[in-house]
Amino acid sequence: MPTGKRGLPATLVRRGGERILVDCGEGTQRQLLRSDIGLVELEEVFLTHFHADHYLGLPGMLKTFALRGRETPLTLYGPAGLADLVGTLRRIFGRLTYPVSTVELEPGEALARDGYRIETFATAHAVTSVGYALVEEERPGRFDVQRANELGVPGGPDRGRLQRGEPVTLADGRVVQPSEVLGEPRAGRKLVLTGDTAPVGSVVEAAAGADLLVHEATFLADERERARETLHSTAGEAALAAREAGVKLLALTHVSTRYFGHQVVEEAAALFPATVVPRDFDIVTVPFPERGTPELVRSGARSGRAPVGSEA
Amino acid sequence: MPTGKRGLPATLVRRGGERILVDCGEGTQRQLLRSDIGLVELEEVFLTHFHADHYLGLPGMLKTFALRGRETPLTLYGPAGLADLVGTLRRIFGRLTYPVSTVELEPGEALARDGYRIETFATAHAVTSVGYALVEEERPGRFDVQRANELGVPGGPDRGRLQRGEPVTLADGRVVQPSEVLGEPRAGRKLVLTGDTAPVGSVVEAAAGADLLVHEATFLADERERARETLHSTAGEAALAAREAGVKLLALTHVSTRYFGHQVVEEAAALFPATVVPRDFDIVTVPFPERGTPELVRSGARSGRAPVGSEA
Repeated sequence: MPTGKRGLPATLVRRGGERILVDCGEGTQRQLLRSDIGLVELEEVFLTHFHADHYLGLPGMLKTFALRGRETPLTLYGPAGLADLVGTLRRIFGRLTYPVSTVELEPGEALARDGYRIETFATAHAVTSVGYALVEEERPGRFDVQRANELGVPGGPDRGRLQRGEPVTLADGRVVQPSEVLGEPRAGRKLVLTGDTAPVGSVVEAAAGADLLVHEATFLADERERARETLHSTAGEAALAAREAGVKLLALTHVSTRYFGHQVVEEAAALFPATVVPRDFDIVTVPFPERGTPELVRSGARSGRAPVGSEA
Repeated sequence: MPTGKRGLPATLVRRGGERILVDCGEGTQRQLLRSDIGLVELEEVFLTHFHADHYLGLPGMLKTFALRGRETPLTLYGPAGLADLVGTLRRIFGRLTYPVSTVELEPGEALARDGYRIETFATAHAVTSVGYALVEEERPGRFDVQRANELGVPGGPDRGRLQRGEPVTLADGRVVQPSEVLGEPRAGRKLVLTGDTAPVGSVVEAAAGADLLVHEATFLADERERARETLHSTAGEAALAAREAGVKLLALTHVSTRYFGHQVVEEAAALFPATVVPRDFDIVTVPFPERGTPELVRSGARSGRAPVGSEA
């Protein structure tokens, strides 16, 4: 259920110029319009499962793209049943100005992207569901300019080759290996989004060492029975998963209308201190590990009411 | 299309304790939550036609009612095709905790209500469509207390009978007629909502003498050709309808994202000065004629951004 302050599930992932939407609850197009990002021409939307609060924003958003005359294709990803769902939704959104295709994914699949991959993992919900992990490749080590100068590597293409991991033969016949001028390979980043799920080992496994784990926390401990019946997690259970997985930051979402963000943070932080509960329009930045740690950035109050008590 | 400032079509009509929703675009449940009214348990929702921007808020709102455990039945009204549409939407909203029924209406029908009736009238849009007029019954004339005292009518039930239009026999055998103590019958109020429509005589007819005409104005004169192609109205055309119908106040809605409210008011006011363009959450009050004239009341800025330039 939405509230005056909280919209329905939708998370936008930005990486360089890329924009990926994960889940698309009712009103997502307008939330994007009201955000600093705007309603950009998303090319990929990932659904974690097919409860209406996670997809009802799709038909309206697809129609808006068509009203703008969009021609760029759009691909929807989701667990088994996606094609059926989109078949039903097509009766609503009708003919569009651009092609929409669907890709059904099993847990354990990986989609190759430029510099990273999107992996699916098993979650445990009342309907077929899947979680998503964005896992960046290792980046080459830092290029040691001083050392390259000492070795007599000329500026230009030869240095590029070394950075890409290729050996280079100099004018005088000497061969310089990449390892002579490059530091240790640097870790990529890892972002894991669970969607709705009860506590389950596959989530901890998928989240191992993640920079950011975006985990649902529908309930608090006082509603643990209800969490079990509905296959959701409590804030404490999400914190335990983050702790076992050794993530850097835990962002809790999908909070029941009965709780305030600070209550959720309190319960989780007792087990896992690096926990935040983002509000609508908040941003979590995930820098390269050598540049800092993931951090919640509060947005301006665009959700239409005064901010709820602080919880960072 | 929505914008950051403007949600999708939905108008709530309040009369005493009654709440009637006309159209239910994506995000309506949340707009209600963010309004001073809240997401009340609506018992009747009227749709003007079945373009997605006018009904996509229904499945989510119906599901939210069910999550609250609602048991009160809900009735949906709309033109021919409503049952089909709701059949499709049921695949989304599934089983609810309360019954939802549909009533298809032809133009020219009237639903009797306590003290008023809801009449349908023909509109001209690209799909089957209908407009709604809420027409109050005449109210009895004002009760002249001084005259009743002079005639010796005792306080209590006898005066109630006279007010309801029944003659009364006094203790001394004299008969007092209602006309002796009541002024002229007082007009009821009339509120007319067009939904999407091209200019058409049936709208002017339905709006004759209305206190408030809520008329679409998707375009301005510079887009008249497009208005014709898409079966919408320009602001000037809506103003002309209001003028011909002799309404007291014209409220323009369904404004294209390309225009600002003040532009729309300017074009319309040249033909019909009593024109307003309500913003989201604004209220138009319609008092009984003897108590004042219909008026736009700006709401607090709950739409999440600063107000657009004033246009009252």
